[in-house]
Amino acid sequence: MSKSIRVSLLGLGTVGSGVMRILSDHAGMIERRAGSQFDIRHIAVRDLGKQRGVKVDPKLMTTDWKAAATAPDVDVVVELMGGTTAAKDAVLAALRAGKHVVTANKALLATCGDEVFNTAREAGVCVAFEAAVAGGIPIIATLGTSMTGNVVESLEAILNGTTNFILSEMFSKRRAYGDVLAEAQKLGYAEADPTMDIDGTDAAQKLTLLTQLAFGKKIETSEFLRQGINTLELADMLYADELGYRVKLLAMTRLIGKHLEMHVEPTLIRRNRALARTDGAINIVELRGDAVGRLIVSGPGAGEMPTASAVVADLVDFAIGRTQLTFPRLEIWNNDSPLTVLPAEQIERRYYLRFNVEDKPHVIADIADVLGRQEISLASVIQHESPEQSAAAAAATGGGVTIVPLVIMTHRTTEGRIRAAEAEFRRLSCVRSPHIRMPVAD
Amino acid sequence: MSKSIRVSLLGLGTVGSGVMRILSDHAGMIERRAGSQFDIRHIAVRDLGKQRGVKVDPKLMTTDWKAAATAPDVDVVVELMGGTTAAKDAVLAALRAGKHVVTANKALLATCGDEVFNTAREAGVCVAFEAAVAGGIPIIATLGTSMTGNVVESLEAILNGTTNFILSEMFSKRRAYGDVLAEAQKLGYAEADPTMDIDGTDAAQKLTLLTQLAFGKKIETSEFLRQGINTLELADMLYADELGYRVKLLAMTRLIGKHLEMHVEPTLIRRNRALARTDGAINIVELRGDAVGRLIVSGPGAGEMPTASAVVADLVDFAIGRTQLTFPRLEIWNNDSPLTVLPAEQIERRYYLRFNVEDKPHVIADIADVLGRQEISLASVIQHESPEQSAAAAAATGGGVTIVPLVIMTHRTTEGRIRAAEAEFRRLSCVRSPHIRMPVAD
Repeated sequence: MSKSIRVSLLGLGTVGSGVMRILSDHAGMIERRAGSQFDIRHIAVRDLGKQRGVKVDPKLMTTDWKAAATAPDVDVVVELMGGTTAAKDAVLAALRAGKHVVTANKALLATCGDEVFNTAREAGVCVAFEAAVAGGIPIIATLGTSMTGNVVESLEAILNGTTNFILSEMFSKRRAYGDVLAEAQKLGYAEADPTMDIDGTDAAQKLTLLTQLAFGKKIETSEFLRQGINTLELADMLYADELGYRVKLLAMTRLIGKHLEMHVEPTLIRRNRALARTDGAINIVELRGDAVGRLIVSGPGAGEMPTASAVVADLVDFAIGRTQLTFPRLEIWNNDSPLTVLPAEQIERRYYLRFNVEDKPHVIADIADVLGRQEISLASVIQHESPEQSAAAAAATGGGVTIVPLVIMTHRTTEGRIRAAEAEFRRLSCVRSPHIRMPVAD
Repeated sequence: MSKSIRVSLLGLGTVGSGVMRILSDHAGMIERRAGSQFDIRHIAVRDLGKQRGVKVDPKLMTTDWKAAATAPDVDVVVELMGGTTAAKDAVLAALRAGKHVVTANKALLATCGDEVFNTAREAGVCVAFEAAVAGGIPIIATLGTSMTGNVVESLEAILNGTTNFILSEMFSKRRAYGDVLAEAQKLGYAEADPTMDIDGTDAAQKLTLLTQLAFGKKIETSEFLRQGINTLELADMLYADELGYRVKLLAMTRLIGKHLEMHVEPTLIRRNRALARTDGAINIVELRGDAVGRLIVSGPGAGEMPTASAVVADLVDFAIGRTQLTFPRLEIWNNDSPLTVLPAEQIERRYYLRFNVEDKPHVIADIADVLGRQEISLASVIQHESPEQSAAAAAATGGGVTIVPLVIMTHRTTEGRIRAAEAEFRRLSCVRSPHIRMPVAD
């Protein structure tokens, strides 16, 4: 006879319904693989009257989160409420009541991870969170088990499906940012308030979690560079293409001696790399380990069934007992790492710059001169008139002087030097601000 | 105080040296992650006098495999001898002596997996083999843990680095198969006797292992279609490119009702898929699960350090105790699956066909007529004279009649119908045999 794992489900939205569906559709297969049956004892929801995508026994439903989270007849609590207020209370209550927790709540872990993990450690229970980062992609498993013999040297990732969908659509359909965003919202690919996606907060929160696992160091999202996609123009994607690159919202952490270089920014990525070729709402993580070399994992980063798949995998891991062994060994929220964040000014890389400049002699010389004073050398320059653009730009400046785009790719330099050069660009009369600047990942 | 895991290492070639190097270079990190120290007690080698890439205590070295495999002071035996004779004896002896085994020996598991796994089960010990398939790629972990909530629908993979290197070089440098193979052997990328790589045996053995894990069914390499790359010509890669495809040695298993469709063949893959874009000695596995959708994992499929990285991850899994929980649950060599291999004739897909035909009226009509009788319809046709080829072909036939290449891409049909059509092609006087045929993966 197989044993039974008793579960409370907090939240029955799309992911919760997906979990219920997998557990019932594949009950036999999962019981064989887990060596246990899963017995859903309580389902906490906000609204008992709401229509659900799955059939559930009404006797299991309750609006009392706390009771469901701490019920004595439960072994594991699955938190799919989202948010960082009620969800936090529920998770902490469950842990204190001696329940293991499975959560898909990245925001909760990124903002209150210390408290959640310390509470779990004190209570002698575990938190599993494969679903919280990159949906169905086995990235926690890869970092937590497959890379154990490696020093992770770098982690580069596309972690936000909404922005990657927008960027892919802009480029492939040659459409403007605002148009694509509006359509994505209409189709439900983007939230009604997409701020957290678009300004890079969501990707940054995921990056802090992955960085803790990969490098054993907790870094707050406020401690590293973050730039959203809302200032990105199609023109820059097309110039990048001309130079052999794609523009992606790249989340990256790299080990540089005793420092971690870390940032989330729209970034030019060489066209032949898998990261550059990942289109639509797909997530991808490229890891470099000192022994294994480059490993890539990719797949759907969100969505009902992919996320539910990760939640069920975490439940099976509890049933088998693997999580109880893995969790105490995860190098996460230990806070004894000697690594520190590399100050932004010291980050070294190449840069893409686009200026709107007056079409006059000496303009390139003036810009190159500013760069030269910062010891920044030019790798490539593009200046060719794009009829619509220059006409529009000329109209905007009131005619007379023609304004043309000038694109420069620099050789390696530091963020500090680029910032110093930028201060000088603002003083050049031939440069019509604002110029565009993006880093390049090699 | 952390405990100590006592290890016997059988074989100290490149991978063995890599394991020693990781364990000594990263001793502190690994002890922290594993909660244990690894204590190498015995190292069995063929030749005690041989120079090794790592410094090892000569007192640990022995030529007595059996003694090292069964030594009473050992917990885990790492088998890196290769081959299926001495390695098999050593592994079975170790298991019977109650030792856990870590092995990178894909040939041993593919040919004697039953005996190895049953011996382990009887002795109550475990076998870990992440390093045996696709080197450093966490594919065993992905199938064994992350996909537990999914019915796997398909597995498509590039599993042999040598042949993928050869195909990539042929295409990117426009070189002939023989040239590239000779160079690969000179550079050490291909074995002195590369038969097992080139004829698809290596990929087929890996596919049997992955198929067992993904679909819970043991299928011998002799039970499915296998075609090597040795008949592949550059011309076909160029025609494939013209049609929007790359040619790869694709290993694939797909669930079709109660059957498994399974084969290893040079295959046309649509250019925009990650599988098509994987070049060089890299392995890639694309899985489709009913809940998670498409997951991709890729990385170095072989080599000293990537394989050593997987061996060390397996050792850490033993130290933590995860393998002892996972192994009994792996659906491998259970042999109680109701699935059967889909007979080759019933496999459905599109086909690429290249003929050398006489440049006369009615040739396309004759070929289309044969296909039509088998209810095979044409998706695209390419016929344009390639000066060198037709000249060479004409010379080969003694002049007079001009011979030109004719390329046809069919719509979906069955392997059985294509075979029937092929029998008829051989009777057409306008077709100079042998024609080339490859399947297309959509």
